[in-house]
Amino acid sequence: MVRKAIWDFSRIAFLQWWNAIGTLFSLQRFCFHFIAASVIICPVDRDIVTKQKGKRDMSNTIPERLAALRSLMKEKGMDAYLIPTDDFHASEYVGDYFKCRKYMTGFTGSAGTAVVTREMAGLWTDGRYFIQAEQQLAGSTVTLFKMGEPGVPTVHEFLEKNLKEGQCLGFDGRTVNAKAAADLEEKLKKNHVSLNGTEDLVGEIWEDRPALSCEPVSELAVKWAGRSRSDKCREIREKMQEKNVDVFLLTSLDDIAWLLNIRGGDVHCNPVVLSHLAMTREEIYLFANEKAFSDEVKAALGKDGVTLRPYDDIYSYASSLEAGKRVLLCRAKVNSRLAGSVPGDVEILDEENLTLLPKAVKNPVEVENERIAHIKDGVAVTKFIYWLKKNVGKMTITELSAMAKLEALRAEQENFLGNSFDYIMSYGPHAAMNHYSATPETDVPIEAKGLLLADTGGQYLEGTTDITRTIVMGPITDEQRKFFTAVLRGTLNLAAAKFRYGCCGLNLDYLARGPLWEMGADFNHGTGHGVGYYLNVHEGPNGFRWKIVPERNDSAVFEEGMITSDEPGYYVEGQYGIRHENMIVCKKAEKTSFGQFMHFEHLTMVPFDLEGIDADQMTGQERGLLNSYHAQVYDTIAPYLTKEEQEWLKEATRAI
Amino acid sequence: MVRKAIWDFSRIAFLQWWNAIGTLFSLQRFCFHFIAASVIICPVDRDIVTKQKGKRDMSNTIPERLAALRSLMKEKGMDAYLIPTDDFHASEYVGDYFKCRKYMTGFTGSAGTAVVTREMAGLWTDGRYFIQAEQQLAGSTVTLFKMGEPGVPTVHEFLEKNLKEGQCLGFDGRTVNAKAAADLEEKLKKNHVSLNGTEDLVGEIWEDRPALSCEPVSELAVKWAGRSRSDKCREIREKMQEKNVDVFLLTSLDDIAWLLNIRGGDVHCNPVVLSHLAMTREEIYLFANEKAFSDEVKAALGKDGVTLRPYDDIYSYASSLEAGKRVLLCRAKVNSRLAGSVPGDVEILDEENLTLLPKAVKNPVEVENERIAHIKDGVAVTKFIYWLKKNVGKMTITELSAMAKLEALRAEQENFLGNSFDYIMSYGPHAAMNHYSATPETDVPIEAKGLLLADTGGQYLEGTTDITRTIVMGPITDEQRKFFTAVLRGTLNLAAAKFRYGCCGLNLDYLARGPLWEMGADFNHGTGHGVGYYLNVHEGPNGFRWKIVPERNDSAVFEEGMITSDEPGYYVEGQYGIRHENMIVCKKAEKTSFGQFMHFEHLTMVPFDLEGIDADQMTGQERGLLNSYHAQVYDTIAPYLTKEEQEWLKEATRAI
Repeated sequence: MVRKAIWDFSRIAFLQWWNAIGTLFSLQRFCFHFIAASVIICPVDRDIVTKQKGKRDMSNTIPERLAALRSLMKEKGMDAYLIPTDDFHASEYVGDYFKCRKYMTGFTGSAGTAVVTREMAGLWTDGRYFIQAEQQLAGSTVTLFKMGEPGVPTVHEFLEKNLKEGQCLGFDGRTVNAKAAADLEEKLKKNHVSLNGTEDLVGEIWEDRPALSCEPVSELAVKWAGRSRSDKCREIREKMQEKNVDVFLLTSLDDIAWLLNIRGGDVHCNPVVLSHLAMTREEIYLFANEKAFSDEVKAALGKDGVTLRPYDDIYSYASSLEAGKRVLLCRAKVNSRLAGSVPGDVEILDEENLTLLPKAVKNPVEVENERIAHIKDGVAVTKFIYWLKKNVGKMTITELSAMAKLEALRAEQENFLGNSFDYIMSYGPHAAMNHYSATPETDVPIEAKGLLLADTGGQYLEGTTDITRTIVMGPITDEQRKFFTAVLRGTLNLAAAKFRYGCCGLNLDYLARGPLWEMGADFNHGTGHGVGYYLNVHEGPNGFRWKIVPERNDSAVFEEGMITSDEPGYYVEGQYGIRHENMIVCKKAEKTSFGQFMHFEHLTMVPFDLEGIDADQMTGQERGLLNSYHAQVYDTIAPYLTKEEQEWLKEATRAI
Repeated sequence: MVRKAIWDFSRIAFLQWWNAIGTLFSLQRFCFHFIAASVIICPVDRDIVTKQKGKRDMSNTIPERLAALRSLMKEKGMDAYLIPTDDFHASEYVGDYFKCRKYMTGFTGSAGTAVVTREMAGLWTDGRYFIQAEQQLAGSTVTLFKMGEPGVPTVHEFLEKNLKEGQCLGFDGRTVNAKAAADLEEKLKKNHVSLNGTEDLVGEIWEDRPALSCEPVSELAVKWAGRSRSDKCREIREKMQEKNVDVFLLTSLDDIAWLLNIRGGDVHCNPVVLSHLAMTREEIYLFANEKAFSDEVKAALGKDGVTLRPYDDIYSYASSLEAGKRVLLCRAKVNSRLAGSVPGDVEILDEENLTLLPKAVKNPVEVENERIAHIKDGVAVTKFIYWLKKNVGKMTITELSAMAKLEALRAEQENFLGNSFDYIMSYGPHAAMNHYSATPETDVPIEAKGLLLADTGGQYLEGTTDITRTIVMGPITDEQRKFFTAVLRGTLNLAAAKFRYGCCGLNLDYLARGPLWEMGADFNHGTGHGVGYYLNVHEGPNGFRWKIVPERNDSAVFEEGMITSDEPGYYVEGQYGIRHENMIVCKKAEKTSFGQFMHFEHLTMVPFDLEGIDADQMTGQERGLLNSYHAQVYDTIAPYLTKEEQEWLKEATRAI
């Protein structure tokens, strides 16, 4: 899937708080604890988890909540209070427990930052949400700051200007990563403004705060994961030894899930477990809610030396580290309260998580499983396209009903565990909005004309999928056909790259954009992102983009086994949107006297819509790429289709 | 021209000392003081310049010189002495005055570093020079260290291992840039080894040391330079003001020549003036040998506020800077003695030279002049190819005589001022050696078969040229034809790139290498470098390569007016070499809602040899690129040819 507006290179937004994507609306999503028989389920107890005592009076209106917050701020000596959108792990989606910004302002968008001073309150958000925010902030006394508009200060600029010498900025240090907090501290230090990240003031006043998520944890068997937990831990410990590290603090939820071969359901669409992890040379502490773990899972973890401790104990664990120890933690990922808990006489090695690369480099079992997942996913999506083509104009199909149909088709597949992200099913002009997510209010019928963009994906025990097809529903314009073809040329050419080992996405991105750039056109998002194995649909450090964005850390050298999406697009506001996305896996090609060569193989197995193509625009080589891909799609998918569907697929994958 | 083995990415050699390229052999080169009538010439006085007093006894053999050096080292308390290859400005070529390493070891290669300890002497050089160095070091007592061979320590490793606590490493701080010296100091500090860069010990014992070059300085009129000296100085001063800089210390010779609109002949093939420059908000001091300046040039400089001071005075000038001043200097370019002369209470801003970018971004006058230079150069090279094709097999032509012929043809052109680098004219297997430079010992006849690689360039008042053509002298193999075509596809596709403003060479390099990578082949040098305007043939910060090499600083965003070479190649050791090189200028294309688009235009106007091409390997688009380029070449060059040559060119540029 495309990372929507935040992939825009024009503006690296304030800290990482804008990184959450899309709206959080989810249509009837399959929960992650829809788990196959082999997976153990434990009882859930949502209500008593982390329930806090001694709260203030509940405030029912935003102004009342702000007043309560200001009263607390005064008590704590804080002159301003910062409320970002993140959870404690910088997850892509934020659970209800963490929605402090929404609680304090009423604004429900997925991206935004609130600042409350003694005199005013402000909400910063980007262009996607200006209208929504204006409506939701009405009567709240919260001022909307439209990010990127002329004359509108950034949050940093606002704080630098409004905080005076000797004043204090408060925030919940668990919701800001350590690097971002240090950057902010550096900026405000000039004015002798101090930071206090130790207090969760919103938590203090939020009487009916939802509980922390506590979905059941399951083990991922080696037949799916490809490697045992102990084997992975051994590798990480070897790296710790190389770097002379005593303790490795890991708080990225997908890294923890990968390392321990566990899966959960604590983050929307991400099958992860709300937890922190500390690994020493001898011990592994998993800080998580014990209630989420069955006895069997606990025993299995225990056998591999993993000790469960309460979720919140990570802070006291960090503060009790012995002087002279050397701790590896990634400041850009660990929250600032945790980093700040490490005593000053403990040495911090601020490096990328040791798990990042081995997680991204899928092992041979994972790669072969991913092929299976993509056959199943391909069958579902191919059936969906067939169904759409057959029924459009004959029955009522809307964006939402199409989503439901596709979800149902995926659910028919064995080992399907839910969606890997909120589907983008956008018809006509809706497809030009990268952040569009259909709701009952926006839903429209799909007619027998124009283009439907379907960016969807599934979670399977055999891996995570992410596919976009732009489907021709009927007559389209010459312009649409021209760009449909140009974008597809980019998708095909990038996937066909052959290159020296050592290349990263930056070296290859031109292949995807060239056909558009040639026409003075482009798309304002990255061309591709790493994809997890039955984990987060977005992961680093691999990706395709034409300008390095250091914060993204997605410009790594391609290694054999890395899986990346390949998804150029083209969008015309108010009219239509096109995106063609396959997942591709990096493989070694031949090694010659010049070095090791690499190439990609398609994982995704679904036809591109030939009805959108102007074959004359394509070179013979490009037509060859499309024809050979389509032949592979037919051979792979046809056996799982009905006779009618097979006949249709034969035609849909014909050589051009 | 290709930067030979040093463009190899496999090894970033020790400091920048290996950066000098090729051998220094030059066949009867045209001097830079072959100057047009408009340029003022002043008398030269080579002999008395910088003659030093009180030298030690002249030593005639290498062991005697080493003994004298060791005696001095003992006197000065130095336990080892380092002798790199650089001059005081890290120029690409090194004048005779600076050849201390050659004087102390007898080794004449263009790249190498000597280390002399009390007990031994070592010379480090790379694979190009192993045989030559072995021969030249015989009987010298100097040990050869073959860089890159297994088990051979680098200079750094050797020093780290052999210098003990409390010992001192000496070197002439003027021959090592400040960044490299700081890196070395950092490395040796661990062993409590000190550095002393204040003594030129080789100079002390070198009785018959050649004088510093003092070639006459000429002014470059605005009709050639496009901008006046005062205009350029005003721009630099504006940047100084923005950065709150009081003094800008500039020691890169091409930057000084560009800024002051002066040219000289103090570095082989580089029309520069041996000098340092200090610019304040009010004054400009040019530290150079006054004898090189005519009264007219002095008066013109004086009018624009440039004061001449003796070359060596830069050090005392730097040491007399007032406390609290802010000085901009680029540590990677300024020598360590100069950087070390700046008092500790002066703030140093270590940034890229303010002149680097405006020098690289050619102004419209420069670009139009370059077109003229390339017409003249194109006429010379086209005539040369015609002459070769007509006469090969009928008269004796060797690499050296071919070089002489081409130089003579260039010399017929108005405003020709010399070669822009030592020609690479390499026939058959010689062309596989990127560093090959024909000498009387290696010269071979060019026969009516196989491939001749001619990488040559000229200096004109209208600009600098650099062109490579691989010329088919007779029958070639299918393999040669295959790679000849693949390399040419790369040259054409890169030049045809259209891209968003913001791209650098890394984004586009795949276009040049793709056809080779597709076949598991490659070339081990960069794809292109920036080219000066009647200045150095190699300049930053633009270039094409697929991996960033930070020391090179050649991965800048392409700006309109930047001129870059486009020169992929293919080499088979012992057999043949292919390279096709054009110079291309970056221009703005259309600006659309997606942003500013950019493209390149060919400057070089010489046909590629159709006799080497397998048209079936090329796409229709690629054939179109070649045909339209060839049509342009014919239209541009034909008017300056004889009727016979025109007829030949018509055929040589026919559409395929």
